[in-house]
Amino acid sequence: MKILLIGVSGTIGKAVTKRLANNDEIIAAGYSNADVIVDLGSAESIKKMFEQVGQVDAVISTAGVANFGSFDQLSDDEYQLALNNKLMGQVNLVRLGRAYISNGGSITLTSGVLSREPMIGSTAVSMVNGALESFVKAAALEIDSFRLNVVSPIFVKETMAMMGMDTEGGLSADDTAKAYVAAVTGSMHGATLDAPDHVN
Amino acid sequence: MKILLIGVSGTIGKAVTKRLANNDEIIAAGYSNADVIVDLGSAESIKKMFEQVGQVDAVISTAGVANFGSFDQLSDDEYQLALNNKLMGQVNLVRLGRAYISNGGSITLTSGVLSREPMIGSTAVSMVNGALESFVKAAALEIDSFRLNVVSPIFVKETMAMMGMDTEGGLSADDTAKAYVAAVTGSMHGATLDAPDHVN
Ligand SMILES: NC(=O)c1ccc[n+]([C@@H]2O[C@H](COP(=O)([O-])OP(=O)(O)OC[C@H]3O[C@@H](n4cnc5c(N)ncnc54)[C@H](OP(=O)(O)O)[C@@H]3O)[C@@H](O)[C@H]2O)c1
Ligand SMILES: NC(=O)c1ccc[n+]([C@@H]2O[C@H](COP(=O)([O-])OP(=O)(O)OC[C@H]3O[C@@H](n4cnc5c(N)ncnc54)[C@H](OP(=O)(O)O)[C@@H]3O)[C@@H](O)[C@H]2O)c1
Repeated sequence: MKILLIGVSGTIGKAVTKRLANNDEIIAAGYSNADVIVDLGSAESIKKMFEQVGQVDAVISTAGVANFGSFDQLSDDEYQLALNNKLMGQVNLVRLGRAYISNGGSITLTSGVLSREPMIGSTAVSMVNGALESFVKAAALEIDSFRLNVVSPIFVKETMAMMGMDTEGGLSADDTAKAYVAAVTGSMHGATLDAPDHVN
Repeated sequence: MKILLIGVSGTIGKAVTKRLANNDEIIAAGYSNADVIVDLGSAESIKKMFEQVGQVDAVISTAGVANFGSFDQLSDDEYQLALNNKLMGQVNLVRLGRAYISNGGSITLTSGVLSREPMIGSTAVSMVNGALESFVKAAALEIDSFRLNVVSPIFVKETMAMMGMDTEGGLSADDTAKAYVAAVTGSMHGATLDAPDHVN
Protein backbone atom coordinates (compact mmCIF):
# COMPACT_ATOMS: atom_id res chain seq x y z
CA MET A 1 0.00 0.00 0.00
CA LYS A 2 0.97 3.59 -0.57
CA ILE A 3 0.31 5.40 2.72
CA LEU A 4 0.51 9.15 3.31
CA LEU A 5 1.46 9.66 6.97
CA ILE A 6 1.10 13.18 8.36
CA GLY A 7 3.04 13.62 11.60
CA VAL A 8 5.74 11.16 10.62
CA SER A 9 8.44 12.68 12.84
CA GLY A 10 6.33 12.58 16.02
CA THR A 11 6.35 10.13 18.91
CA ILE A 12 3.38 8.18 17.54
CA GLY A 13 4.22 8.83 13.86
CA LYS A 14 7.67 7.27 14.20
CA ALA A 15 6.22 4.16 15.83
CA VAL A 16 3.53 3.83 13.14
CA THR A 17 6.19 4.18 10.44
CA LYS A 18 8.25 1.41 11.99
CA ARG A 19 5.26 -0.96 12.03
CA LEU A 20 4.24 -0.25 8.43
CA ALA A 21 7.46 0.47 6.55
CA ASN A 22 8.34 -3.20 5.91
CA ASN A 23 5.23 -3.89 3.85
CA ASP A 24 4.08 -0.50 2.73
CA GLU A 25 5.40 2.59 1.03
CA ILE A 26 5.23 5.49 3.50
CA ILE A 27 5.03 9.02 2.15
CA ALA A 28 6.43 11.07 5.03
CA ALA A 29 4.58 14.31 5.72
CA GLY A 30 4.82 16.83 8.53
CA TYR A 31 5.13 20.44 9.46
CA SER A 32 8.90 20.98 9.38
CA ASN A 33 10.66 17.66 9.45
CA ALA A 34 9.43 15.51 6.55
CA ASP A 35 9.64 14.87 2.80
CA VAL A 36 6.26 16.50 2.20
CA ILE A 37 5.64 19.71 4.12
CA VAL A 38 2.10 20.52 5.19
CA ASP A 39 0.39 22.78 7.71
CA LEU A 40 -2.79 21.17 9.03
CA GLY A 41 -3.91 24.63 10.08
CA SER A 42 -4.25 25.71 6.44
CA ALA A 43 -6.73 24.18 4.00
CA GLU A 44 -4.66 25.65 1.16
CA SER A 45 -1.59 23.77 2.34
CA ILE A 46 -3.54 20.50 2.66
CA LYS A 47 -4.85 20.94 -0.89
CA LYS A 48 -1.29 21.47 -2.17
CA MET A 49 -0.08 18.36 -0.34
CA PHE A 50 -2.66 16.15 -2.03
CA GLU A 51 -1.92 17.70 -5.44
CA GLN A 52 1.77 17.00 -4.87
CA VAL A 53 1.32 13.43 -3.58
CA GLY A 54 -1.53 12.25 -5.82
CA GLN A 55 -3.46 9.03 -5.28
CA VAL A 56 -2.78 6.92 -2.18
CA ASP A 57 -4.32 3.84 -0.58
CA ALA A 58 -4.39 5.28 2.90
CA VAL A 59 -3.92 8.51 4.80
CA ILE A 60 -2.91 8.42 8.46
CA SER A 61 -2.76 11.53 10.59
CA THR A 62 -0.74 11.36 13.80
CA ALA A 63 -0.62 15.14 13.97
CA GLY A 64 -2.82 17.96 15.23
CA VAL A 65 -2.02 20.76 17.65
CA ALA A 66 -4.12 21.56 20.73
CA ASN A 67 -2.75 23.04 23.93
CA PHE A 68 -3.24 22.18 27.56
CA GLY A 69 -4.10 25.06 29.85
CA SER A 70 -6.19 25.72 32.93
CA PHE A 71 -9.82 26.50 32.19
CA ASP A 72 -9.37 29.88 33.91
CA GLN A 73 -6.62 30.86 31.55
CA LEU A 74 -7.24 29.23 28.18
CA SER A 75 -7.48 32.14 25.75
CA ASP A 76 -9.66 32.67 22.70
CA ASP A 77 -6.56 32.02 20.60
CA GLU A 78 -5.93 28.67 22.24
CA TYR A 79 -9.49 27.51 21.61
CA GLN A 80 -9.16 28.68 18.00
CA LEU A 81 -5.81 26.90 17.56
CA ALA A 82 -7.32 23.61 18.76
CA LEU A 83 -10.38 24.05 16.54
CA ASN A 84 -8.42 25.18 13.51
CA ASN A 85 -5.49 22.80 13.73
CA LYS A 86 -6.26 19.50 15.47
CA LEU A 87 -9.99 19.53 14.63
CA MET A 88 -10.54 21.26 11.28
CA GLY A 89 -7.05 20.30 10.05
CA GLN A 90 -8.01 16.64 10.33
CA VAL A 91 -11.59 17.25 9.13
CA ASN A 92 -10.07 18.93 6.07
CA LEU A 93 -7.81 15.94 5.46
CA VAL A 94 -11.06 14.02 4.86
CA ARG A 95 -12.87 16.77 2.94
CA LEU A 96 -9.93 17.55 0.65
CA GLY A 97 -8.27 14.12 0.65
CA ARG A 98 -11.27 11.98 -0.22
CA ALA A 99 -10.76 12.43 -3.97
CA TYR A 100 -7.23 11.03 -3.68
CA ILE A 101 -8.02 7.79 -1.78
CA SER A 102 -8.09 4.56 -3.79
CA ASN A 103 -11.32 2.62 -3.76
CA GLY A 104 -11.35 0.45 -0.63
CA GLY A 105 -8.67 2.57 1.02
CA SER A 106 -8.85 4.39 4.33
CA ILE A 107 -8.27 7.57 6.29
CA THR A 108 -7.29 7.30 9.95
CA LEU A 109 -7.24 10.35 12.23
CA THR A 110 -6.08 10.86 15.82
CA SER A 111 -8.14 12.08 18.76
CA GLY A 112 -7.28 10.98 22.33
CA VAL A 113 -8.92 9.43 25.39
CA LEU A 114 -9.25 12.87 27.01
CA SER A 115 -12.55 13.19 25.12
CA ARG A 116 -14.07 10.71 27.56
CA GLU A 117 -11.58 10.78 30.46
CA PRO A 118 -10.57 14.41 30.83
CA MET A 119 -7.94 15.72 33.23
CA ILE A 120 -7.29 19.11 34.78
CA GLY A 121 -6.09 21.41 31.99
CA SER A 122 -7.50 19.37 29.11
CA THR A 123 -10.61 21.43 28.31
CA ALA A 124 -9.59 22.51 24.78
CA VAL A 125 -7.97 19.16 24.00
CA SER A 126 -10.96 17.18 25.29
CA MET A 127 -13.32 19.38 23.30
CA VAL A 128 -11.61 18.79 19.94
CA ASN A 129 -11.06 15.09 20.65
CA GLY A 130 -14.79 14.66 21.29
CA ALA A 131 -15.56 16.62 18.14
CA LEU A 132 -13.28 14.36 16.06
CA GLU A 133 -14.85 11.15 17.34
CA SER A 134 -18.40 12.35 16.58
CA PHE A 135 -17.29 13.78 13.23
CA VAL A 136 -15.83 10.45 12.14
CA LYS A 137 -18.91 8.49 13.19
CA ALA A 138 -21.19 10.89 11.31
CA ALA A 139 -19.13 11.43 8.15
CA ALA A 140 -18.60 7.67 7.73
CA LEU A 141 -22.36 7.30 7.13
CA GLU A 142 -21.90 9.27 3.91
CA ILE A 143 -18.60 7.78 2.72
CA ASP A 144 -18.79 4.59 0.68
CA SER A 145 -15.56 4.35 -1.28
CA PHE A 146 -13.10 4.25 1.62
CA ARG A 147 -13.12 3.67 5.38
CA LEU A 148 -12.79 6.49 7.92
CA ASN A 149 -11.72 5.91 11.53
CA VAL A 150 -10.05 7.69 14.41
CA VAL A 151 -7.52 6.30 16.88
CA SER A 152 -7.96 7.54 20.45
CA PRO A 153 -4.65 6.94 22.25
CA ILE A 154 -4.19 7.00 25.98
CA PHE A 155 -1.01 8.74 27.22
CA VAL A 156 2.04 7.39 25.43
CA LYS A 157 4.80 6.19 27.77
CA GLU A 158 7.51 8.00 25.76
CA THR A 159 5.54 11.26 25.98
CA MET A 160 5.03 10.83 29.73
CA ALA A 161 8.77 10.22 30.18
CA MET A 162 9.54 13.33 28.15
CA MET A 163 7.21 15.33 30.42
CA GLY A 164 8.82 13.91 33.55
CA MET A 165 5.67 11.95 34.44
CA ASP A 166 5.48 8.46 35.88
CA THR A 167 4.99 6.22 32.81
CA GLU A 168 2.88 3.68 34.71
CA GLY A 169 -0.58 3.72 33.16
CA GLY A 170 0.71 4.80 29.75
CA LEU A 171 0.97 2.70 26.59
CA SER A 172 4.22 2.44 24.61
CA ALA A 173 4.34 4.23 21.26
CA ASP A 174 4.85 0.86 19.62
CA ASP A 175 1.69 -0.60 21.19
CA THR A 176 -0.17 2.60 20.30
CA ALA A 177 0.91 2.14 16.69
CA LYS A 178 -0.90 -1.21 16.55
CA ALA A 179 -4.26 0.61 16.65
CA TYR A 180 -3.30 2.51 13.48
CA VAL A 181 -2.27 -0.74 11.78
CA ALA A 182 -5.62 -2.22 12.81
CA ALA A 183 -7.46 0.77 11.35
CA VAL A 184 -5.60 0.55 8.04
CA THR A 185 -5.72 -3.24 7.61
CA GLY A 186 -9.08 -3.99 9.29
CA SER A 187 -12.63 -3.48 8.15
CA MET A 188 -13.99 -0.96 10.65
CA HIS A 189 -15.62 2.24 9.37
CA GLY A 190 -16.71 5.20 11.47
CA ALA A 191 -15.05 3.74 14.54
CA THR A 192 -13.10 5.22 17.42
CA LEU A 193 -10.27 2.77 18.09
CA ASP A 194 -9.07 2.85 21.68
CA ALA A 195 -5.35 2.37 21.35
CA PRO A 196 -5.01 -0.20 24.16
CA ASP A 197 -7.60 -2.52 22.56
CA HIS A 198 -5.36 -3.53 19.67
CA VAL A 199 -2.19 -4.46 21.50
CA ASN A 200 -2.44 -8.20 20.90
CA MET B 1 -34.24 31.04 41.56
CA LYS B 2 -33.32 33.68 39.03
CA ILE B 3 -32.67 31.83 35.76
CA LEU B 4 -31.27 33.33 32.57
CA LEU B 5 -32.67 31.30 29.67
CA ILE B 6 -31.08 31.81 26.25
CA GLY B 7 -33.28 30.50 23.45
CA VAL B 8 -36.51 31.22 25.30
CA SER B 9 -38.65 31.54 22.15
CA GLY B 10 -37.59 28.19 20.69
CA THR B 11 -39.38 24.85 20.71
CA ILE B 12 -37.38 23.56 23.67
CA GLY B 13 -36.98 26.99 25.33
CA LYS B 14 -40.74 27.54 25.49
CA ALA B 15 -41.28 24.14 27.11
CA VAL B 16 -38.50 24.76 29.64
CA THR B 17 -40.02 28.14 30.48
CA LYS B 18 -43.40 26.54 31.11
CA ARG B 19 -41.91 24.01 33.51
CA LEU B 20 -39.89 26.58 35.49
CA ALA B 21 -41.93 29.79 35.41
CA ASN B 22 -44.19 28.84 38.33
CA ASN B 23 -41.36 28.63 40.84
CA ASP B 24 -38.57 30.61 39.28
CA GLU B 25 -37.94 34.00 37.75
CA ILE B 26 -37.02 33.51 34.10
CA ILE B 27 -34.96 36.17 32.36
CA ALA B 28 -35.90 35.66 28.73
CA ALA B 29 -32.97 35.91 26.28
CA GLY B 30 -32.67 35.18 22.59
CA TYR B 31 -31.51 36.41 19.25
CA SER B 32 -34.50 38.43 18.05
CA ASN B 33 -37.55 37.53 20.07
CA ALA B 34 -36.81 38.08 23.78
CA ASP B 35 -36.43 40.64 26.56
CA VAL B 36 -32.65 40.37 26.50
CA ILE B 37 -31.10 40.24 23.05
CA VAL B 38 -27.90 38.25 22.57
CA ASP B 39 -25.98 36.72 19.68
CA LEU B 40 -24.26 33.51 20.77
CA GLY B 41 -21.95 33.94 17.79
CA SER B 42 -20.37 37.02 19.36
CA ALA B 43 -18.37 36.96 22.60
CA GLU B 44 -18.85 40.73 22.83
CA SER B 45 -22.62 40.30 22.78
CA ILE B 46 -22.48 37.58 25.46
CA LYS B 47 -20.36 39.85 27.66
CA LYS B 48 -22.90 42.66 27.27
CA MET B 49 -25.77 40.30 28.14
CA PHE B 50 -24.15 39.32 31.44
CA GLU B 51 -23.33 42.95 32.27
CA GLN B 52 -26.96 43.84 31.60
CA VAL B 53 -28.47 40.91 33.54
CA GLY B 54 -26.04 40.71 36.46
CA GLN B 55 -25.95 37.87 38.95
CA VAL B 56 -28.21 34.83 38.42
CA ASP B 57 -28.63 31.42 40.04
CA ALA B 58 -28.70 29.52 36.81
CA VAL B 59 -28.07 29.89 33.10
CA ILE B 60 -29.80 27.58 30.64
CA SER B 61 -29.01 27.60 26.94
CA THR B 62 -31.55 26.05 24.60
CA ALA B 63 -29.96 27.85 21.65
CA GLY B 64 -27.08 27.28 19.27
CA VAL B 65 -27.04 27.23 15.49
CA ALA B 66 -25.55 24.40 13.41
CA ASN B 67 -26.80 23.37 9.97
CA PHE B 68 -27.56 20.04 8.46
CA GLY B 69 -26.05 19.38 5.05
CA SER B 70 -24.63 16.46 3.11
CA PHE B 71 -20.98 15.75 3.81
CA ASP B 72 -20.23 16.34 0.12
CA GLN B 73 -21.64 19.82 0.25
CA LEU B 74 -21.08 21.25 3.72
CA SER B 75 -19.01 24.38 3.15
CA ASP B 76 -16.20 25.92 5.16
CA ASP B 77 -18.69 28.56 6.27
CA GLU B 78 -21.13 25.98 7.59
CA TYR B 79 -18.45 24.26 9.66
CA GLN B 80 -17.38 27.67 10.98
CA LEU B 81 -20.97 28.63 11.83
CA ALA B 82 -21.44 25.44 13.86
CA LEU B 83 -18.09 25.92 15.63
CA ASN B 84 -18.58 29.62 16.24
CA ASN B 85 -22.26 29.59 17.23
CA LYS B 86 -23.47 26.33 18.75
CA LEU B 87 -20.07 25.28 20.08
CA MET B 88 -18.04 28.38 21.04
CA GLY B 89 -21.20 30.40 21.75
CA GLN B 90 -22.10 27.95 24.50
CA VAL B 91 -18.48 27.52 25.61
CA ASN B 92 -18.33 31.30 25.94
CA LEU B 93 -21.49 31.32 28.05
CA VAL B 94 -19.44 29.35 30.57
CA ARG B 95 -16.19 31.31 30.16
CA LEU B 96 -17.86 34.72 30.35
CA GLY B 97 -20.83 33.79 32.53
CA ARG B 98 -19.02 32.02 35.36
CA ALA B 99 -18.41 35.27 37.25
CA TYR B 100 -22.16 35.95 37.32
CA ILE B 101 -23.37 32.58 38.71
CA SER B 102 -24.33 32.46 42.39
CA ASN B 103 -22.42 30.03 44.54
CA GLY B 104 -24.08 26.62 44.20
CA GLY B 105 -25.81 27.64 40.97
CA SER B 106 -25.57 25.98 37.57
CA ILE B 107 -25.07 26.36 33.85
CA THR B 108 -26.86 23.94 31.51
CA LEU B 109 -26.03 23.78 27.81
CA THR B 110 -27.61 21.89 24.90
CA SER B 111 -25.94 19.37 22.60
CA GLY B 112 -27.99 16.58 20.97
CA VAL B 113 -27.96 12.81 20.58
CA LEU B 114 -26.48 13.13 17.07
CA SER B 115 -23.05 13.21 18.76
CA ARG B 116 -23.42 9.49 19.40
CA GLU B 117 -26.19 8.50 16.98
CA PRO B 118 -25.50 10.46 13.80
CA MET B 119 -27.72 10.51 10.74
CA ILE B 120 -27.11 11.33 7.09
CA GLY B 121 -26.46 15.07 6.87
CA SER B 122 -25.52 15.57 10.52
CA THR B 123 -21.72 15.78 10.20
CA ALA B 124 -21.33 19.40 11.39
CA VAL B 125 -24.08 19.06 14.01
CA SER B 126 -22.68 15.77 15.34
CA MET B 127 -19.19 17.27 15.49
CA VAL B 128 -20.17 20.24 17.66
CA ASN B 129 -22.49 18.14 19.84
CA GLY B 130 -19.60 15.77 20.59
CA ALA B 131 -17.35 18.73 21.30
CA LEU B 132 -19.88 20.19 23.77
CA GLU B 133 -20.26 16.94 25.71
CA SER B 134 -16.49 16.50 26.08
CA PHE B 135 -16.03 20.20 26.89
CA VAL B 136 -18.56 20.02 29.73
CA LYS B 137 -17.02 16.88 31.21
CA ALA B 138 -13.54 18.43 31.13
CA ALA B 139 -14.36 21.97 32.25
CA ALA B 140 -16.42 20.67 35.20
CA LEU B 141 -13.22 19.23 36.70
CA GLU B 142 -11.99 22.80 37.16
CA ILE B 143 -15.26 24.44 38.26
CA ASP B 144 -16.07 24.31 41.97
CA SER B 145 -18.53 27.10 42.65
CA PHE B 146 -21.34 26.01 40.33
CA ARG B 147 -22.44 22.93 38.40
CA LEU B 148 -22.02 22.57 34.62
CA ASN B 149 -24.02 20.09 32.56
CA VAL B 150 -25.30 19.57 29.04
CA VAL B 151 -28.67 18.19 27.94
CA SER B 152 -28.53 15.96 24.88
CA PRO B 153 -32.06 15.83 23.44
CA ILE B 154 -33.28 13.30 20.93
CA PHE B 155 -35.51 14.65 18.15
CA VAL B 156 -38.35 16.69 19.59
CA LYS B 157 -41.81 15.62 18.38
CA GLU B 158 -42.86 19.23 17.69
CA THR B 159 -39.74 19.77 15.58
CA MET B 160 -40.35 16.55 13.65
CA ALA B 161 -43.94 17.60 12.98
CA MET B 162 -42.73 21.00 11.76
CA MET B 163 -40.34 19.23 9.38
CA GLY B 164 -43.06 16.94 8.11
CA MET B 165 -41.44 13.88 9.71
CA ASP B 166 -43.19 11.02 11.45
CA THR B 167 -43.08 11.97 15.16
CA GLU B 168 -42.84 8.35 16.32
CA GLY B 169 -39.49 7.95 18.06
CA GLY B 170 -39.33 11.59 19.11
CA LEU B 171 -39.82 13.05 22.59
CA SER B 172 -42.30 15.86 23.29
CA ALA B 173 -40.84 19.28 24.05
CA ASP B 174 -42.44 19.07 27.48
CA ASP B 175 -40.73 15.77 28.29
CA THR B 176 -37.47 17.14 26.89
CA ALA B 177 -37.79 20.10 29.25
CA LYS B 178 -37.70 17.74 32.24
CA ALA B 179 -34.02 17.04 31.59
CA TYR B 180 -33.27 20.76 31.96
CA VAL B 181 -35.24 20.89 35.20
CA ALA B 182 -33.26 17.88 36.41
CA ALA B 183 -29.99 19.61 35.51
CA VAL B 184 -30.95 22.80 37.36
CA THR B 185 -32.46 21.20 40.47
CA GLY B 186 -30.29 18.07 40.71
CA SER B 187 -26.73 17.57 41.88
CA MET B 188 -24.96 16.33 38.73
CA HIS B 189 -21.82 18.13 37.52
CA GLY B 190 -20.00 17.54 34.24
CA ALA B 191 -22.79 15.26 33.02
CA THR B 192 -24.45 14.74 29.67
CA LEU B 193 -28.16 14.31 30.43
CA ASP B 194 -29.96 12.23 27.84
CA ALA B 195 -33.33 13.91 27.60
CA PRO B 196 -35.42 10.71 27.63
CA ASP B 197 -33.87 9.59 30.94
CA HIS B 198 -35.61 12.25 33.00
CA VAL B 199 -39.17 11.86 31.82
CA ASN B 200 -40.50 10.37 35.02
N1 LIG C 1 1.65 11.35 22.77
C1 LIG C 1 0.58 11.13 23.51
O1 LIG C 1 0.67 10.77 24.71
C2 LIG C 1 -0.79 11.30 22.93
C3 LIG C 1 -1.93 10.79 23.61
C4 LIG C 1 -3.18 11.02 23.05
C5 LIG C 1 -3.30 11.68 21.85
N2 LIG C 1 -2.20 12.16 21.22
C6 LIG C 1 -2.36 12.88 19.96
O2 LIG C 1 -1.61 12.23 18.95
C7 LIG C 1 -1.12 13.18 18.01
C8 LIG C 1 0.37 12.99 17.85
O3 LIG C 1 0.97 13.05 19.12
P1 LIG C 1 2.55 12.89 19.28
O4 LIG C 1 2.82 12.86 20.74
O5 LIG C 1 3.07 11.80 18.42
O6 LIG C 1 3.01 14.32 18.72
P2 LIG C 1 4.50 14.91 18.56
O7 LIG C 1 5.52 13.92 18.98
O8 LIG C 1 4.49 16.25 19.19
O9 LIG C 1 4.61 15.09 16.96
C9 LIG C 1 3.76 15.96 16.31
C10 LIG C 1 3.83 15.67 14.82
O10 LIG C 1 2.87 16.50 14.18
C11 LIG C 1 3.51 17.32 13.23
N3 LIG C 1 2.88 18.65 13.23
C12 LIG C 1 2.95 19.63 14.17
N4 LIG C 1 2.26 20.70 13.78
C13 LIG C 1 1.74 20.42 12.56
C14 LIG C 1 0.97 21.14 11.60
N5 LIG C 1 0.54 22.39 11.85
N6 LIG C 1 0.68 20.54 10.43
C15 LIG C 1 1.08 19.28 10.17
N7 LIG C 1 1.81 18.55 11.02
C16 LIG C 1 2.14 19.11 12.19
C17 LIG C 1 4.97 17.39 13.61
O11 LIG C 1 5.70 17.63 12.41
P3 LIG C 1 7.23 18.22 12.34
O12 LIG C 1 8.06 17.46 13.34
O13 LIG C 1 7.59 17.92 10.92
O14 LIG C 1 7.16 19.69 12.62
C18 LIG C 1 5.18 15.98 14.20
O15 LIG C 1 5.44 15.06 13.19
C19 LIG C 1 -1.54 14.57 18.55
O16 LIG C 1 -2.74 14.95 17.93
C20 LIG C 1 -1.80 14.29 20.02
O17 LIG C 1 -2.76 15.18 20.57
C21 LIG C 1 -0.95 11.97 21.72
N1 LIG D 1 -35.64 20.45 18.41
C1 LIG D 1 -34.97 19.28 18.35
O1 LIG D 1 -35.48 18.26 17.84
C2 LIG D 1 -33.60 19.20 18.90
C3 LIG D 1 -32.98 17.93 19.11
C4 LIG D 1 -31.69 17.88 19.60
C5 LIG D 1 -31.00 19.05 19.87
N2 LIG D 1 -31.60 20.26 19.66
C6 LIG D 1 -30.85 21.49 19.96
O2 LIG D 1 -31.55 22.25 20.90
C7 LIG D 1 -31.33 23.64 20.67
C8 LIG D 1 -32.67 24.34 20.58
O3 LIG D 1 -33.45 23.69 19.61
P1 LIG D 1 -34.93 24.20 19.25
O4 LIG D 1 -35.51 23.22 18.30
O5 LIG D 1 -35.66 24.54 20.51
O6 LIG D 1 -34.56 25.54 18.45
P2 LIG D 1 -35.53 26.61 17.78
O7 LIG D 1 -36.97 26.30 18.02
O8 LIG D 1 -35.06 26.80 16.38
O9 LIG D 1 -35.19 27.93 18.63
C9 LIG D 1 -33.93 28.47 18.59
C10 LIG D 1 -33.78 29.47 19.72
O10 LIG D 1 -32.43 29.92 19.73
C11 LIG D 1 -32.40 31.32 19.59
N3 LIG D 1 -31.24 31.71 18.74
C12 LIG D 1 -31.07 31.51 17.41
N4 LIG D 1 -29.90 32.01 17.00
C13 LIG D 1 -29.32 32.55 18.10
C14 LIG D 1 -28.11 33.27 18.33
N5 LIG D 1 -27.20 33.50 17.35
N6 LIG D 1 -27.85 33.71 19.59
C15 LIG D 1 -28.73 33.48 20.60
N7 LIG D 1 -29.88 32.80 20.45
C16 LIG D 1 -30.18 32.36 19.21
C17 LIG D 1 -33.71 31.74 18.95
O11 LIG D 1 -33.96 33.07 19.36
P3 LIG D 1 -34.99 34.10 18.62
O12 LIG D 1 -36.28 33.37 18.36
O13 LIG D 1 -35.13 35.18 19.66
O14 LIG D 1 -34.33 34.59 17.36
C18 LIG D 1 -34.65 30.70 19.56
O15 LIG D 1 -35.06 31.11 20.84
C19 LIG D 1 -30.48 23.72 19.40
O16 LIG D 1 -29.12 23.85 19.78
C20 LIG D 1 -30.70 22.38 18.75
O17 LIG D 1 -29.59 21.97 17.96
C21 LIG D 1 -32.88 20.36 19.20
